[in-house]
Amino acid sequence: MSWLQNSIMAQRAVAKGNVNSVHSITEADQGKYHYVYGPYVEPVLRVDPGTEVSVETHDAFEGAIKSESDVPSQILNFPYLNPQNGPIYVNGAEKGDCLAVYIKEIRPRGPQPAGTTCLLTEFGGLVGTGDTAILNAPLPERVKKVHVDAVKGVTWNDKITIPYEPFIGTIGTSPEIEAISALQPDYYGGNMDLPDVAPGAVVYLPVNAPGGLLYLGDCHANQGDGELCGVAIEHPTVTTVQIDLIKNWNFKWVRLENEKVIMTIGSGRPMEDAARIAYRELVRWMAADYDFTELDAYMLLTQVGRARLGNMVDPKYTIGASILKSYLV
Amino acid sequence: MSWLQNSIMAQRAVAKGNVNSVHSITEADQGKYHYVYGPYVEPVLRVDPGTEVSVETHDAFEGAIKSESDVPSQILNFPYLNPQNGPIYVNGAEKGDCLAVYIKEIRPRGPQPAGTTCLLTEFGGLVGTGDTAILNAPLPERVKKVHVDAVKGVTWNDKITIPYEPFIGTIGTSPEIEAISALQPDYYGGNMDLPDVAPGAVVYLPVNAPGGLLYLGDCHANQGDGELCGVAIEHPTVTTVQIDLIKNWNFKWVRLENEKVIMTIGSGRPMEDAARIAYRELVRWMAADYDFTELDAYMLLTQVGRARLGNMVDPKYTIGASILKSYLV
Amino acid sequence: MSWLQNSIMAQRAVAKGNVNSVHSITEADQGKYHYVYGPYVEPVLRVDPGTEVSVETHDAFEGAIKSESDVPSQILNFPYLNPQNGPIYVNGAEKGDCLAVYIKEIRPRGPQPAGTTCLLTEFGGLVGTGDTAILNAPLPERVKKVHVDAVKGVTWNDKITIPYEPFIGTIGTSPEIEAISALQPDYYGGNMDLPDVAPGAVVYLPVNAPGGLLYLGDCHANQGDGELCGVAIEHPTVTTVQIDLIKNWNFKWVRLENEKVIMTIGSGRPMEDAARIAYRELVRWMAADYDFTELDAYMLLTQVGRARLGNMVDPKYTIGASILKSYLV
Amino acid sequence: MSWLQNSIMAQRAVAKGNVNSVHSITEADQGKYHYVYGPYVEPVLRVDPGTEVSVETHDAFEGAIKSESDVPSQILNFPYLNPQNGPIYVNGAEKGDCLAVYIKEIRPRGPQPAGTTCLLTEFGGLVGTGDTAILNAPLPERVKKVHVDAVKGVTWNDKITIPYEPFIGTIGTSPEIEAISALQPDYYGGNMDLPDVAPGAVVYLPVNAPGGLLYLGDCHANQGDGELCGVAIEHPTVTTVQIDLIKNWNFKWVRLENEKVIMTIGSGRPMEDAARIAYRELVRWMAADYDFTELDAYMLLTQVGRARLGNMVDPKYTIGASILKSYLV
Repeated sequence: MSWLQNSIMAQRAVAKGNVNSVHSITEADQGKYHYVYGPYVEPVLRVDPGTEVSVETHDAFEGAIKSESDVPSQILNFPYLNPQNGPIYVNGAEKGDCLAVYIKEIRPRGPQPAGTTCLLTEFGGLVGTGDTAILNAPLPERVKKVHVDAVKGVTWNDKITIPYEPFIGTIGTSPEIEAISALQPDYYGGNMDLPDVAPGAVVYLPVNAPGGLLYLGDCHANQGDGELCGVAIEHPTVTTVQIDLIKNWNFKWVRLENEKVIMTIGSGRPMEDAARIAYRELVRWMAADYDFTELDAYMLLTQVGRARLGNMVDPKYTIGASILKSYLV
Repeated sequence: MSWLQNSIMAQRAVAKGNVNSVHSITEADQGKYHYVYGPYVEPVLRVDPGTEVSVETHDAFEGAIKSESDVPSQILNFPYLNPQNGPIYVNGAEKGDCLAVYIKEIRPRGPQPAGTTCLLTEFGGLVGTGDTAILNAPLPERVKKVHVDAVKGVTWNDKITIPYEPFIGTIGTSPEIEAISALQPDYYGGNMDLPDVAPGAVVYLPVNAPGGLLYLGDCHANQGDGELCGVAIEHPTVTTVQIDLIKNWNFKWVRLENEKVIMTIGSGRPMEDAARIAYRELVRWMAADYDFTELDAYMLLTQVGRARLGNMVDPKYTIGASILKSYLV
Repeated sequence: MSWLQNSIMAQRAVAKGNVNSVHSITEADQGKYHYVYGPYVEPVLRVDPGTEVSVETHDAFEGAIKSESDVPSQILNFPYLNPQNGPIYVNGAEKGDCLAVYIKEIRPRGPQPAGTTCLLTEFGGLVGTGDTAILNAPLPERVKKVHVDAVKGVTWNDKITIPYEPFIGTIGTSPEIEAISALQPDYYGGNMDLPDVAPGAVVYLPVNAPGGLLYLGDCHANQGDGELCGVAIEHPTVTTVQIDLIKNWNFKWVRLENEKVIMTIGSGRPMEDAARIAYRELVRWMAADYDFTELDAYMLLTQVGRARLGNMVDPKYTIGASILKSYLV
Repeated sequence: MSWLQNSIMAQRAVAKGNVNSVHSITEADQGKYHYVYGPYVEPVLRVDPGTEVSVETHDAFEGAIKSESDVPSQILNFPYLNPQNGPIYVNGAEKGDCLAVYIKEIRPRGPQPAGTTCLLTEFGGLVGTGDTAILNAPLPERVKKVHVDAVKGVTWNDKITIPYEPFIGTIGTSPEIEAISALQPDYYGGNMDLPDVAPGAVVYLPVNAPGGLLYLGDCHANQGDGELCGVAIEHPTVTTVQIDLIKNWNFKWVRLENEKVIMTIGSGRPMEDAARIAYRELVRWMAADYDFTELDAYMLLTQVGRARLGNMVDPKYTIGASILKSYLV
C-alpha cells in the first residue's frame, strides 16, 4: 500500500486522492504559453477535483536556445521567459481552499541534446545582478547543451554523468488580483526551483482566485541546492499531475508532503526571511494539525528541522523547511 | 524664471514642458479605483503630452478608517488597499520612452480630521511582519486621526504641530505584462513613499506598456524617513500633475529632478540592494548625460552623494540617491 | 582501508595524518575557559603536528543551567558565554598555513540530564533580536533538560527520541590581532553550528596567528538545520581530535572533508552572503586543486552543489557548500 | 549662550561639561597606533572627566598612499589599517556608564595634497567584496590625491570644489573582552563613518570596560551618504575633543546630540537591521527620557524621524536615526 493512501490529500480532498478523469494538454492544446501568474487569461482547461493531467511543458527558454554558439542576450526577450502551461481551472475551488497536486511523473521529451544550461548576463548567485547592482564587468555568456535520458541521466561530459532527478521548477496558483512574472516565487508558488517538488510529492497550493488557476512549467532534469548560476538543466517534458481540492484548508504559503516529510516553502529576500517564513509556517502547521504548541514545535525543530535551499537567484530566494513524519507522533 | 524652464522635461519632452490642455479626474470620473499597477484595465483618461491633470485621490484606506475606535484588521480587506487613480494613457508613449510628470500641487480635501495614521498588525519597520516572520505576539492595533491644514500643518496633539509637506506616496507606470500590487514599489515606481516626490519635482517614469499607463495615489501630508510604522499621515487630496513625454529616453528605474538635485530611486530587499540600485543608476546617468566616466562618478558620489530612505516597510524598501546639480559641471 | 588514508590531510600534512603523540585537556588542565577567539592568552597546550588530544568540553552555558525551573536571563552573564577549550599552539604553524583537525570522537560526559536547550530572550531564528530589533514583546524564557546517551540517543519526551549525532558547534583558530566573541562564526571558524563538523570529518582551519591557536567547545548532541531557536541540545563532552598542519595551504574560509564530500563554510549576513562566500570558496577550491575552470565549476555546482544551513541565529549565519568527491574526476 | 550649556553632557556629566584640564597626544606621544578596539593594550593617557585632548590623527592608510601612481594592494597590509589614537582611560568610568565626548574642532595637518581617496580591490558599495562574494572581475585600483584646506575646501578638480565638512570616521570605546578591527562599526562605536559625528556634536559612548578606553581616528574632510566607494577624503588631522563621564547612563548603542537633534546610531547587516537598531534605540530613548510611550514615539517618528546613511561599505552598515529637539516637548 502506498503512503499516498494515508496522505493528507487522500484524507481531506474532495476526490479522496482518487483519479476519476484523465486529460492532456499538448503544445497545440496550450497554444499560447504564459509568462505571468495571474487571473487575466482564459483557462486552457477546466477540471473537477480528481483529474489527472499530462502536460507538455517547454523548457524555460521555450526552446529558443538551440546550440552552444547561441548568445542568450540576443535570443531571449525579457519578460517573455519561463513559459507556463495552464491555467487549469479547478471546479469548486474558492479563496480559502487549497489545491492538492500530486506529481506523478516527469519524462523528458524532444530532440537531443534536450538539456540546456547557460550563463546569462547579470543573473546568477555569484554575480552582480539587476537587484544586487554593481559596477564590475559581467561574466561572459555561455551555453551548454546536454543529453538528458530518464534512465542514463544527464551526460555532463565524458567523465561526469548526473542522475536524472527531475522536478517542477515553477508551479502555483494565481494571485487574486496580481499577475506576477513566472520568474518569481511567492506565497502562491511560482518559480520556487525547489528539488523536492518532484514525482512522489503532493504540493498543496493556496487558492486565491476562483478555480485556483493552476500554472506549471520549467522542469529541471537535475539541480543543485540554490541553482547557483540560475539555470539548472532545463528541458521540455511531459509532466503528469493529479489534481484534487481541499475545501477550507486555508494557509498562506505553499506546503508539500511526501512519504517521509511534511514541508513548508518560503520565498523572500534577504534569504533569512525565506527561512523564517518556511519555519514559521511549519511551526504553525505543527501547532494546528499535530498536537504541538507553537513553542514546543519551535524547540523540536531546533533539533530535527531540515532546510533545503531551492534558489538563490530569483527575485525572491526559496527555502523549504521540513520535519520527518516520524516525529509527528 | 523658474528652474523648470531648464529642466530636462523642458529640454527633451515632446511638449517642451508646456501645458496645452487641462483635465480633471474626480472621484466620480474615476469610479473604480485600482489596486494593482498593470495593463489589464481600460484607461480612465487619454491625454496628449503637455496635459495638466487634477486628480481626486483617496487616502491609502479609501477613507474606510473614520475614527480612532476603528479596528483596522476588521475594516481593511487585503489586497484591496492603497487605491490608485488612473491609468492615464499618454498618446505616443511606447516602450523605451519615459513619462515626465511635473508635480504642481497637492491640496488636502474632505472633512476633518482628514489625516489618518495607525498601527497595523504585522506591518511596520519595528515589528515582525509577513515577510520577516516571527513568533512574538503582534503590537496592539491603534488609530490616530489628525487635522490636516495646508497652511497650519498637521495637528499631532496639543503640543506638536508638523508642517504640511505633502508628497505622492505611490506613482508610476504599468509593467509590460505584470499587474503588481499598489503596495509594492519597483522599477516602474509604485509605492515608493519617498518624500522627494513632492510639488516642485519632475518624476521621470520608464514606459513599459503602450501609453505608459500612469497611476497615482496615496498622498502623505508628511512623512519621516523610512515611514517607520508603515502608515504616514494619509489623506485624500486634489493632486495636480503636468504630464509630458520624452521619446527614446530609456532607463530601468525611476528618476527625479528638482531645482537642486537629480535623483535616482531604487527599491529592493535587503535595503542595501535598494541603495546599490539607486547609486548605480545615478552613476550611469552621470556617465550618460554629464560627462563623467563611471569610475569618476563613483568616486565623486563617495564624497557628495546623498541617500534618502523612503520606506523601510513595503515589500521592497526604497532609497533615493542624489547629487546637487551644482556638481554636474 | 579508511578513506582517511587518501584524505588531503594524509597527502599534504606534516605528519601525514599519523598520530605520534597523545594528550588530554581535562577541566582541571584547562582551568579558565575562554570566551573570545584571540591571540591575547597563553596556550593551554603546545603540540607538534600529529598529536591526538582529548578535551573535556563544557556545554555552551558552562553547566550553569541545571534545571527546568532556571531562568536563563538571571543566570547567564553575557559576554561570558560559550566557554572554549584551548588555545592549543601547534608548533610550526604560521600565517598562510592551515591546521588539519580530524574529529575522532565525541562522547557525552557528566550527570544526567546532560542535555540542555532553552528559549533565551531576544535570541533565536523566529524572534526579534538585538540585531533584528523590534518592539514586539519577547517570547517567554523556557528551559528543557534531556537525557543524552551515545547509544540510545536524546530522550526528548515519552514519544520522541532523537538520534545522538554529535558535532562540534564552535571550533577555529585565532584571528591575527582581533579577539572575537566565541558566539560568532567567521572566516577562522568559531560558532559555525554546522552539523557536518562531526566525527569522521577533517576540518581545515586557516592559520592567522603564530601556532594557529586552536580553540573548540560547544558540542551539540543533535541539531536541526539552522539551529532554529538558537540552542541545540547542548552537552558537556569528551571530544577527541587529531591535529596536523599543512604548510602553505593558504585560503580565507574554513574547509572540510569527509569520506563523501569536500565542503567550504561561509558565514555572513544577510544569509545570501554566507551562501555566496561558501560557494565562491568551493568554486575557487575546485579551480585550484581539481582541474576545473572557475566557470566550469560554477556551472557544475549549479547542477550538483549541496548547501547546508548551519545556523540562522548567530551574529553571522553559516552555510556549508559541498560537492560529492565522485564529481571531482 | 551656546546650546551646549543645556546639553545632556552639561546636565548629567561628572564635570558638567566644563574643561578642567587640557592635554595633547602627538604622533610621538602615541607611538604605536592601534588597529583593534580592545582592552588588551596600555592606555596612552589617563584623564579625569572634564579634560580636553588634542590628538594628531593619521589618515586611514597611516599616510602610506602618497601619490596617484601608488597601487594600494601593494602598499596596504591588512589587518593593519585604519590606525587609531588612544586608548584614553577615563578615571571613574565603569561598565554601565557612558563617556560624553564633545567634538570641538578638526583641522587638517601635514603636507599637501593632504587628502586621499581611492578604489580598493573588492571593497566598496557598488562592487563585489569579501562579504558579498562574486566571480566578476574586480574594478581597477585607482588613487586620487586632493588638496584639503579648512577654509577653501577640497579641490576635487579644476571645476569642482567640495566644502570642508570634517568629521571623525572612527571613534568609540573598548568592548569588554573582545578586540575588534578598527574597520568595523558596532554598538561601542568604531568605524561608523557617519558625517554627523562632527564638530559641534556630543557623542555618548557606552562604557563596557574599566576606564571606557576611548579610541579615535580616521577623520574625513568630506563624505557623501554611504561612503560609496569605501574611501572618503581621508586626511591627517589635529582633532580636539572634550571628554566627560556620565555615571549610570546605561544603553547599548552610541548616541549623539547636537544643537538641533538627538540621534541614535545603529550598525548591522543587512542594512534594514542597522535602521531597525537605530530607530528602536531612539524609541527607547524617547520613552525613557522624554515622556513618550514607546508606541507614541514609534508613531511620531513615522512622521518626523530622520535617517542618515553613514556607510554602506564596512563589515556592518551604519545608520543614524534622529528627531528634532523641537518635537521633544
